[in-house]
Amino acid sequence: MEPGSNSQMKLVTGDAGYLLEDVPHLTDYIPDMPTYPNPLRFNPAYSVVKQYFVDMDDTVAQKIVVHKDSPRGIHFRRAGPRQKVYFNSDEVHACIVTCGGLCPGLNTVIRELVCGLSYMYGVNKVLGIDGGYRGFYAKNTVTLTPKVVNDIHKRGGTSLGTSRGGFDTCKIVDSIQDRGINQVYIIGGDGTQKGATAIYEEIRQRGLKVAVVGIPKTIDNDIPVIDKSFGFDTAVEEAQRAINAAHVEAESTENGVGVVKLMGRHCGFIAMYATLASRDVDCCLIPESPFYLEGEGGLFEFIEKRLKENGHMVIVIAEGAGQELLSERMQSGDQKDESGNKLLPDVGLWISHRIKDHFANQRKMLLTLKYIDPTYMIRAIPGNASDNVYCTLLAQSAVHGAMAGYTGFTSGLVNGRHTYIPFNRITEKQKKVVITDRMWARLLSSTNQPSFLGPKVVVESKKEDEPPTDLFDGENCKDDQSGK
Amino acid sequence: MEPGSNSQMKLVTGDAGYLLEDVPHLTDYIPDMPTYPNPLRFNPAYSVVKQYFVDMDDTVAQKIVVHKDSPRGIHFRRAGPRQKVYFNSDEVHACIVTCGGLCPGLNTVIRELVCGLSYMYGVNKVLGIDGGYRGFYAKNTVTLTPKVVNDIHKRGGTSLGTSRGGFDTCKIVDSIQDRGINQVYIIGGDGTQKGATAIYEEIRQRGLKVAVVGIPKTIDNDIPVIDKSFGFDTAVEEAQRAINAAHVEAESTENGVGVVKLMGRHCGFIAMYATLASRDVDCCLIPESPFYLEGEGGLFEFIEKRLKENGHMVIVIAEGAGQELLSERMQSGDQKDESGNKLLPDVGLWISHRIKDHFANQRKMLLTLKYIDPTYMIRAIPGNASDNVYCTLLAQSAVHGAMAGYTGFTSGLVNGRHTYIPFNRITEKQKKVVITDRMWARLLSSTNQPSFLGPKVVVESKKEDEPPTDLFDGENCKDDQSGK
Amino acid sequence: MEPGSNSQMKLVTGDAGYLLEDVPHLTDYIPDMPTYPNPLRFNPAYSVVKQYFVDMDDTVAQKIVVHKDSPRGIHFRRAGPRQKVYFNSDEVHACIVTCGGLCPGLNTVIRELVCGLSYMYGVNKVLGIDGGYRGFYAKNTVTLTPKVVNDIHKRGGTSLGTSRGGFDTCKIVDSIQDRGINQVYIIGGDGTQKGATAIYEEIRQRGLKVAVVGIPKTIDNDIPVIDKSFGFDTAVEEAQRAINAAHVEAESTENGVGVVKLMGRHCGFIAMYATLASRDVDCCLIPESPFYLEGEGGLFEFIEKRLKENGHMVIVIAEGAGQELLSERMQSGDQKDESGNKLLPDVGLWISHRIKDHFANQRKMLLTLKYIDPTYMIRAIPGNASDNVYCTLLAQSAVHGAMAGYTGFTSGLVNGRHTYIPFNRITEKQKKVVITDRMWARLLSSTNQPSFLGPKVVVESKKEDEPPTDLFDGENCKDDQSGK
Amino acid sequence: MEPGSNSQMKLVTGDAGYLLEDVPHLTDYIPDMPTYPNPLRFNPAYSVVKQYFVDMDDTVAQKIVVHKDSPRGIHFRRAGPRQKVYFNSDEVHACIVTCGGLCPGLNTVIRELVCGLSYMYGVNKVLGIDGGYRGFYAKNTVTLTPKVVNDIHKRGGTSLGTSRGGFDTCKIVDSIQDRGINQVYIIGGDGTQKGATAIYEEIRQRGLKVAVVGIPKTIDNDIPVIDKSFGFDTAVEEAQRAINAAHVEAESTENGVGVVKLMGRHCGFIAMYATLASRDVDCCLIPESPFYLEGEGGLFEFIEKRLKENGHMVIVIAEGAGQELLSERMQSGDQKDESGNKLLPDVGLWISHRIKDHFANQRKMLLTLKYIDPTYMIRAIPGNASDNVYCTLLAQSAVHGAMAGYTGFTSGLVNGRHTYIPFNRITEKQKKVVITDRMWARLLSSTNQPSFLGPKVVVESKKEDEPPTDLFDGENCKDDQSGK
Repeated sequence: MEPGSNSQMKLVTGDAGYLLEDVPHLTDYIPDMPTYPNPLRFNPAYSVVKQYFVDMDDTVAQKIVVHKDSPRGIHFRRAGPRQKVYFNSDEVHACIVTCGGLCPGLNTVIRELVCGLSYMYGVNKVLGIDGGYRGFYAKNTVTLTPKVVNDIHKRGGTSLGTSRGGFDTCKIVDSIQDRGINQVYIIGGDGTQKGATAIYEEIRQRGLKVAVVGIPKTIDNDIPVIDKSFGFDTAVEEAQRAINAAHVEAESTENGVGVVKLMGRHCGFIAMYATLASRDVDCCLIPESPFYLEGEGGLFEFIEKRLKENGHMVIVIAEGAGQELLSERMQSGDQKDESGNKLLPDVGLWISHRIKDHFANQRKMLLTLKYIDPTYMIRAIPGNASDNVYCTLLAQSAVHGAMAGYTGFTSGLVNGRHTYIPFNRITEKQKKVVITDRMWARLLSSTNQPSFLGPKVVVESKKEDEPPTDLFDGENCKDDQSGK
Repeated sequence: MEPGSNSQMKLVTGDAGYLLEDVPHLTDYIPDMPTYPNPLRFNPAYSVVKQYFVDMDDTVAQKIVVHKDSPRGIHFRRAGPRQKVYFNSDEVHACIVTCGGLCPGLNTVIRELVCGLSYMYGVNKVLGIDGGYRGFYAKNTVTLTPKVVNDIHKRGGTSLGTSRGGFDTCKIVDSIQDRGINQVYIIGGDGTQKGATAIYEEIRQRGLKVAVVGIPKTIDNDIPVIDKSFGFDTAVEEAQRAINAAHVEAESTENGVGVVKLMGRHCGFIAMYATLASRDVDCCLIPESPFYLEGEGGLFEFIEKRLKENGHMVIVIAEGAGQELLSERMQSGDQKDESGNKLLPDVGLWISHRIKDHFANQRKMLLTLKYIDPTYMIRAIPGNASDNVYCTLLAQSAVHGAMAGYTGFTSGLVNGRHTYIPFNRITEKQKKVVITDRMWARLLSSTNQPSFLGPKVVVESKKEDEPPTDLFDGENCKDDQSGK
Repeated sequence: MEPGSNSQMKLVTGDAGYLLEDVPHLTDYIPDMPTYPNPLRFNPAYSVVKQYFVDMDDTVAQKIVVHKDSPRGIHFRRAGPRQKVYFNSDEVHACIVTCGGLCPGLNTVIRELVCGLSYMYGVNKVLGIDGGYRGFYAKNTVTLTPKVVNDIHKRGGTSLGTSRGGFDTCKIVDSIQDRGINQVYIIGGDGTQKGATAIYEEIRQRGLKVAVVGIPKTIDNDIPVIDKSFGFDTAVEEAQRAINAAHVEAESTENGVGVVKLMGRHCGFIAMYATLASRDVDCCLIPESPFYLEGEGGLFEFIEKRLKENGHMVIVIAEGAGQELLSERMQSGDQKDESGNKLLPDVGLWISHRIKDHFANQRKMLLTLKYIDPTYMIRAIPGNASDNVYCTLLAQSAVHGAMAGYTGFTSGLVNGRHTYIPFNRITEKQKKVVITDRMWARLLSSTNQPSFLGPKVVVESKKEDEPPTDLFDGENCKDDQSGK
Repeated sequence: MEPGSNSQMKLVTGDAGYLLEDVPHLTDYIPDMPTYPNPLRFNPAYSVVKQYFVDMDDTVAQKIVVHKDSPRGIHFRRAGPRQKVYFNSDEVHACIVTCGGLCPGLNTVIRELVCGLSYMYGVNKVLGIDGGYRGFYAKNTVTLTPKVVNDIHKRGGTSLGTSRGGFDTCKIVDSIQDRGINQVYIIGGDGTQKGATAIYEEIRQRGLKVAVVGIPKTIDNDIPVIDKSFGFDTAVEEAQRAINAAHVEAESTENGVGVVKLMGRHCGFIAMYATLASRDVDCCLIPESPFYLEGEGGLFEFIEKRLKENGHMVIVIAEGAGQELLSERMQSGDQKDESGNKLLPDVGLWISHRIKDHFANQRKMLLTLKYIDPTYMIRAIPGNASDNVYCTLLAQSAVHGAMAGYTGFTSGLVNGRHTYIPFNRITEKQKKVVITDRMWARLLSSTNQPSFLGPKVVVESKKEDEPPTDLFDGENCKDDQSGK
């Protein structure tokens, strides 16, 4: 394969529609690399475990819902330790960097990378990059040992620090080269993984023996292909507190309305799952499902109806919901803070004002609205037990992959199995709630909220639905969120 | 298929090794049943969702880790709503029963069965059976409505009551017949599902139009085939409290030893995951991995070593671990309570006494041991957010299946997809931690505890491991717990 | 005593400066009322408790820090059951109303009033007034029984509903008279207790045999005389979550600033105690201690200093802090919402904008500020164990007092003893943090924040401090918050 | 005062029955000690606080419930900073030791001693004694700085380690003398404070300038005089979890009985308050209130009655309850563990067996009993917010007292004010629940449990109660727990 021409994915085809989207390997551009027996072979913990090492041919099917005669579809390389590794333990000089917003479990990933490298592979040179990508060239590094990271998983945040914003790929790779780093673990979201791609490409261009490994981090769960991102479970759990509070506030007054804003700039997964878990939510608004306020079938009408029935209601809104409504208003608007900066369009504040305004002025109806934004209280907690286990396996998979010479890959869970996924599959688009899919229908059924689709749309979609739909490939073709 | 001859599973084969283990249907023994259009087709929440209904041919693959040329293996019928149903909503008379020990999420399942029947299918006749199977004939029933069950998911336990012990299948089926019940939802563990099988068989013999649906409940996670049982996540989460307390107690004294007993009569899943999630555990003992106390490579030696290194340690022990050691002792023993009953062999108390005794008398070494048994504090809490969502989907799947005329099946999650599984696949054996598999190796590596295998065993298993093992079919052949 | 002339307090003097501020009694204006033996005398639970009944002469000293020769000062009547009561159990018709904002423990108070009346005195007619004062005449009442209220203490909010705003005293008393109510329990804050005073005065004018009892509710802890208000402990506890989150967010970025707004419109008790309990707060701003932003000794200077030292900081601000700074700005301002209403001056948002603006524009310094407002998440939780016990005793004291014929009083804790306090002592002023007192000094010492007093003020106050201050009466003269 | 003759308390009398039980001072046995101005006078945080320093004459009244003409009674010296101190900051060499069982808040006390010494008084030499009293001579010490202790209050346990058992007073004082320590802070319970007394006496005999300060620690709350001990609030809060679990288990089965053992070897405060806070408890058994199992008015009768009424019940039992019943049994018994040691008579296990036995064999009644022992899970958590504030003030008071030259005293809260209490008042007896007092009556009324007093006792106590009891001095004469 020529460097440059989609150097991030290698396709392998097989019978019956089998397709493997493989990840790059250091030997793709460095010939004649020596290999070593995996040190785990001499570790008492592993030595008694038959079949511990992953077979070279193991792949994980992306498609699970199948018909008797459907093609087999896309597969990914299975994660795990290999019999042979491409790094001698003494030679490894790893570094870890965390970028973007906080997410429960970040410290667990850091801890388990360090402990995994040390306990499984005897690697003792691990650096922490301080404060995100720019820390590669603008700050001092931190030495990471199992002792240093021993208790960090009990704290929220990231012990390495983080930042957002631009960075210089060349300077980063210079720093990697200058410091003699040969394994780079990058924990971050969409943008960060795109940065990882650029770093990987540059390293490949320079022909360096450096493995670049991404670990996807997004509390929003908007990364495609993978089952869910770490921290998501914890976030949905913690969101229950805010929903409970909104419910109590709403119940305790006449025409009480509780509004809770949850994370989700481009997708509504946290809002949707938090709603399904709670049962106290009357309406869930997400970016994927446009809504409107006024008129028949609109939000105001629904609020009025629900208040008349129950006397109170709870609305959950994802931060990215209704952006098209806000931007209309913002264009004509002059809402600035005292320094002349445009106020951030906080959809929760906005919708709260709109609701209060409508009922006070249009309907002359007294309602008591309480708005809760638990975002930072959710982001900052440590991972729960489930996320801690998940982060541990993600980190260990990443380490196994790098040691085995793979590079330019993301460690990710696909249908419950750990895999190595090419960067571009992770970054080329965002996962979204598919509102024509069953999970959203479950939500609609649980809240009985309107679909916010005009009558015409409904009729049309019904028409489409009438003939027995060809489910060829079924929901596996989408990045589907059902039931996971 | 003839009634009686494995009436619980229908096999369908396809190309490339495809095998469908299908579930029974009322039409298997009742010919000419009328069908009705699914009422969900007229529900606004669902009407806009394309592809809401499950295609008749959808099946879910059990095998996910595959090779390019491996056979496709076992599949299960996908759960979900069908275009046609075999019950008219007005005709449905459902009942719900819970049996066995408590498990977080029980009330959520009850709630969602009632709400699912009512909101999705307009079914208003739902009975609760009081106090387990015997409640069918020995007690009054309870009327269940969405209003009655509205808040029960916020409480632990089961609002229907539960019990253990024997019951009379005929009397149960008599009661079902006499009361005109035609959908039976049975929530319980291994023994309960066997009871459900007997009830289903009896109903089939009598030729009744009654759907029998199982929802597997086991906090131990010992049910085969399915990814995990509901309540398991919550239990692992709550177990962290006990482990933390043991760790604090141990750390605060010289030679402090904290012992935590966790649930798991026949399998060590809770102990294993709680250990992996915590990072404060030095040794995890489970039923699947025999251990010994004295001599080289034994537990006492390890305790002494760890205390010398760290000054304290935490041991997690599953309730079924080491039963072979206890039973030896019990046979010669005379340990009785004041009424002459044999004391329950509580492995936690037993091992605590043994450790204290050994170090006090054999080693003349002072240690301070604290024993914590959090079992009932774990069982009694409500489900966390993740389990609440899971229970909701389990319950909805069960309802869809019964309405669609399936019977003699269990609602279960396979590789992240909801499926209908024949009873016998659930009850024929128990899921166990496979100690030659990678998850257990991860645990061993994280605790660095001994494997408790004599040197000979190690050598032998190593030998087996040497040649590149034929991983054909890999871990999918076992009921494997890796990475899920 | 003449009706009307300070009918709310009866003064009794004694030797050595002893002063009793007594509460009204129904016999003050209704002569010749019959009495009955207290039914508790026949209750097995109480019959074995010697000295169960409060002696008629028991009073509670307000002053505790004394000198050998200091006068004895103000006392209040001790709460508790009396040997004789002025209501026959069958005759009692009680009602309960809750007003104002939510506060942890509200439902416990309601529960214990109902259970106390029923279990201790055999009173079975208890009404709940729906939605605050206006519910007396604008809504239906709710029947309250021990069974109805059995589990409400496990939920936040108020099961009776609440409201704010004006009401008509005459209509309320009409309703009390028309419904035959003779014990009125009023749970609410400052304004509500003023309303209770008006209701009591009107009832007294009409000569009705109706006991009016206040139970002070204020999450802010701003009620004078009493040790602390119920719900305060729970609020301080819950506030720790927000402070922890702010700390984690601040620590994880360079120049990270976490701002937490806590309740306290006119006083900073929650902010102060939450700061003292947390140890992660760098600056605590309260209404009682004016501060300024710019210049020497100002907040901006302190922020810059602390960021340079530590790289991050946490600011806690009470909602009423800095109102003089905000109002300056608001006068010149035009900040309105889309419906033309003046935006509520949220001090947390305001100070966050000011800090970001200052450092971005004046200092060209990049900082990352996260603002957390946990108000509704704190208010809506149920009371913790400590508050539950406190609420129970408050409610029981209230019931004992009403049964004993006292009226126009508030049930309150003084120096750890339950007392009956005249209304006017509760409503005549608000309790505030005394910033020249030791508790505030402890806070300043723990945060090392500036005092925001100009150099001149400091010199002056020092001068005052120099001579051995006459501590005659010490801090007891103020409504002092030290150490409780 | 002569050394040796009750050197631990100095009595001062005043008018109207005023009595001050004062604490020793270094000048009692070291004449002509130089004094220094308190460094806090130059601390900006304190300089603006008028009346910051405690007046030399401030004392705190123990008696609060008074009559117009009652004598003033016992007082204690008020805690707080003095204008003059007897230690130069540079000269101070402090040490801290923790002894006995774990208690929430221990680490907060350690932290605040270190921070108080450093931030308030500029003291930088603070040692931690490792593992309790024996650590003075058998182990190395630990250097404590504000940085080292910065986060320890977020963890349970004691960061210094602890132990039980004997120690050698002379060796301890030798070590104090040899290391040049001149302030000794001793955190521990009853036995520890007796040890502190011995250390103080020895130091006084040797004429050393060493202040010995006790900080009472007992999760049981059994220390007399003081309002409550630190950690008690947290323990009662955490006990709610266990009670909730017992309630859920009991409710979910027919004739379900939940038994919860709580701490309290000699007193039932935790059991009593946890019961009052929960409302789910049917019977609370404490050491102070003897009970019997069989016959009329016994526990078995009550259990049967309650199960018939409600179908389930919850019993809370303090660990020291019913010891007279257990010891009877133990004498005749031969219950030994495998090494021949007498089994610890765990009252919770014992009563659970007795109940099960009685109903199975005597009554042929099936009941399901679940026993929960949350002791170590309660002890090991960190202090809650309320305890954190309390521990902070306790520690600061202790530091102020030592700096001011007081010695042989305990820092304690009396009627909400911090005081210095002579050792002997703390150690001469234990605080107990007074079962003839109102708090216990409140509990009896809330559970409606039997009083376990034979009919004769009841009659007698009633007779005593008939005449208006002379409440002269009222409950203040006892170490009373009412309402605090």
